[in-house]
Amino acid sequence: MSDTVKFVLAEQDIPTHWVNLMADLPGEAPPPLHPGTKEPAGPDDLSPLFPMNLILQEVSAEPVIEIPDEVRDAYKLWRPTPLYRARRLERELDTPAHIYYKYEGVSPAGSHKPNTAVAQAYENAAAGIRKLTTETGAGQWGSALAFACRLFGLECEVWMVGSSYDQKPYRRSMMETWGATVHRSPSDVTESGRSQREHTTGSLGIAISEAVEVAAQSADTNYALGSVLNHVLLHQTVIGQEALAQMALAGEEPDVVVACVGGGSNFGGLAFPFLRRVLRDGAKTKFVAAEPAACPTLTRGVYAYDFGDTVGLTPLMPMYTLGHDFVPPPVHAGGLRYHGDSPLLCGLVKAGLIEARAYRQNETFEAAVRFARSEGIIPAPEPAHAIRAVIEEADAAREAGEARVILFGLCGHGNFDLSAYDAYLGGKLEDPEFSERDLEAALAALPEAPALT
Amino acid sequence: MSDTVKFVLAEQDIPTHWVNLMADLPGEAPPPLHPGTKEPAGPDDLSPLFPMNLILQEVSAEPVIEIPDEVRDAYKLWRPTPLYRARRLERELDTPAHIYYKYEGVSPAGSHKPNTAVAQAYENAAAGIRKLTTETGAGQWGSALAFACRLFGLECEVWMVGSSYDQKPYRRSMMETWGATVHRSPSDVTESGRSQREHTTGSLGIAISEAVEVAAQSADTNYALGSVLNHVLLHQTVIGQEALAQMALAGEEPDVVVACVGGGSNFGGLAFPFLRRVLRDGAKTKFVAAEPAACPTLTRGVYAYDFGDTVGLTPLMPMYTLGHDFVPPPVHAGGLRYHGDSPLLCGLVKAGLIEARAYRQNETFEAAVRFARSEGIIPAPEPAHAIRAVIEEADAAREAGEARVILFGLCGHGNFDLSAYDAYLGGKLEDPEFSERDLEAALAALPEAPALT
Repeated sequence: MSDTVKFVLAEQDIPTHWVNLMADLPGEAPPPLHPGTKEPAGPDDLSPLFPMNLILQEVSAEPVIEIPDEVRDAYKLWRPTPLYRARRLERELDTPAHIYYKYEGVSPAGSHKPNTAVAQAYENAAAGIRKLTTETGAGQWGSALAFACRLFGLECEVWMVGSSYDQKPYRRSMMETWGATVHRSPSDVTESGRSQREHTTGSLGIAISEAVEVAAQSADTNYALGSVLNHVLLHQTVIGQEALAQMALAGEEPDVVVACVGGGSNFGGLAFPFLRRVLRDGAKTKFVAAEPAACPTLTRGVYAYDFGDTVGLTPLMPMYTLGHDFVPPPVHAGGLRYHGDSPLLCGLVKAGLIEARAYRQNETFEAAVRFARSEGIIPAPEPAHAIRAVIEEADAAREAGEARVILFGLCGHGNFDLSAYDAYLGGKLEDPEFSERDLEAALAALPEAPALT
Repeated sequence: MSDTVKFVLAEQDIPTHWVNLMADLPGEAPPPLHPGTKEPAGPDDLSPLFPMNLILQEVSAEPVIEIPDEVRDAYKLWRPTPLYRARRLERELDTPAHIYYKYEGVSPAGSHKPNTAVAQAYENAAAGIRKLTTETGAGQWGSALAFACRLFGLECEVWMVGSSYDQKPYRRSMMETWGATVHRSPSDVTESGRSQREHTTGSLGIAISEAVEVAAQSADTNYALGSVLNHVLLHQTVIGQEALAQMALAGEEPDVVVACVGGGSNFGGLAFPFLRRVLRDGAKTKFVAAEPAACPTLTRGVYAYDFGDTVGLTPLMPMYTLGHDFVPPPVHAGGLRYHGDSPLLCGLVKAGLIEARAYRQNETFEAAVRFARSEGIIPAPEPAHAIRAVIEEADAAREAGEARVILFGLCGHGNFDLSAYDAYLGGKLEDPEFSERDLEAALAALPEAPALT
């Protein structure tokens, strides 16, 4: 039997619509709140930062939303993406499980992020906006937006988390090659950055404050967020819709769907089309969200209203949070270093539909190297967390003697993370824990807001 | 009309045979010569380094050679690769030309090199070999072989050209992630390396000497070359065969086929299936080989017998050469820093079937940035030479007012070359010329051998 089993779709199979899971949720989701009045935030509160079409997507109750032709055309640069059966990994793990992975690293920026970047750049350009600002952690979102802005003729200005800026200089060069301007965050060019100067390694929360501050000051400049918000997760559902079609080609149903979570867009993009079948048809699928033990939002955070950024410029969002001024240690999975998570995803964790697990940095790199040496693709540190969870699931399948079907999201390649692999292979990779004291202090500093149940 | 025009083949369209252009050449090709006796070198002279199946491919006169199932299975990990029409680049260049590119950067190692690496690793494993040694310039070949050795259970030991080892540390980490051992060349672990200690930046010729020396010493260790030899170019013809099928889907015939040349495998892989039509059917196609002005083998070299390596361990090969001890300046297109070129390719240049052009480093990066900012893919410095030639051809088409069809090979991405982009964008990229005096000295030191006509 063939070692390489790849399921490929044709260009016309690129989804025509995004899946809006909001329409299928049982009960009312708690609304975001205005940071000043603590009243529910409406579309007008978001209009200084986002074009109206994205705001309408953010609050839509429609079950599907049509993808504009221009966005589908840009998707064709790298979509549909392949889905593989990981036979070589199955053999390496000596498991009866059938392991599948959906690979998003084939995009020009190397991750799933362009799926929403091109949608956001298109809507902003259509609304007459001249420039987008954003934050980036590992650089995957910033490079995706730099690429997308270039396609649609927009300027792009990026605040890159200091620790990643230092660890991954080539992600900065990549953004600059596409014409973007990149600042190390905290920077001196914003009030928010100057107020957080003491956090020299930075955080996504601080970088968001800087980008939001600059966007709010100019009418022709908007802000773009790479995760967390409903419309961002919405755009990513092209991943899961393609994976549904590819699993049908494989003739299998996943028993378990696994993805890493930073802000939730990779997880939601893969899982939501499968979750909709659970909500609508009672399909029995387990969902596992993998996060870093150094930034354990879903496993150690509290479910409460909190700011999306560190300085407190964004609406209060209902989510699991470690506290908006919690600064995680500088693990290499920079895309997962966020104090909160998508409210939509958090609600599903709260409702028991998604199980969350946290992993240490070294055990995720051990899993990544096993994957690279069997399947040939070197994973980014973020999906290495998912691979760690997959190995647990594959081990459990062996112990149970069951040919369980596992599907996971390989959301990006590790071409820009090889210094971390180098450290791991040399036995020099740090394995940081967060400070319990810092976590307690950050949780004590949550804003006053209605309690969530 | 759509901006993104991509031509995709199905898995069953992966070629079943390689194209052996040798069978279609007019006249006898001059044979390689034994370095000691200067008599024609036969299969037995190659058997200390290569398995018999590869030697038979090297000397085959059959027009096609079947691809083993195991190799086609490995190809399925990333093949068929996409062919794009570069509409956004055409607009940027304001040209009536139709520009197409075949993109090989989707392989796990990021270039076309795995096409031959998996074929060579498979044949060596089938012959009972335990370890492969090789050299690598920019690291693309070394990482491709490390990946392929992993797939077929072989050890891999790589000598990496010193200047690239220093410029591209992450290519080394990539090879190590796949389990290979990597030395900086010239190294202290071989006699050849110790004899070339004064050439601190190294060269492909020196690194070849080191890898050949080690392979020749052990019965269970063979050597693998990433370019130059007939069987290597043979394996790469999957590129051109797919491109032929994709151009047929596009309904166009290329007037010009462009690719960069280091040792010739990328050029031959794309061009030979098209060249066969010229030789057989008299098709009118122009072929342009782009090389660096810092290492201008085809445009400034002499057509003569020379060693493939610096120390003089390999057979003498009939080729354009700058002299086997010529050490080119350390340009970033490390894969093009070779004193010679494929004898097969050189014969076609000599016969006037291929036109060669040389470009300076800065003008190639200018072309690469224009490409990245229009098409979204960041090219490796090697294919940037091809892009520079494509821009000349597109300009000529505009001046002639003709919708000429240009096809070029985008043989790899630039994810590991962003320090060079950084230098270019900052106005700090060097633009080295080679030393005329060094070239004269190297040409004067050519080995004694029969003259070529």
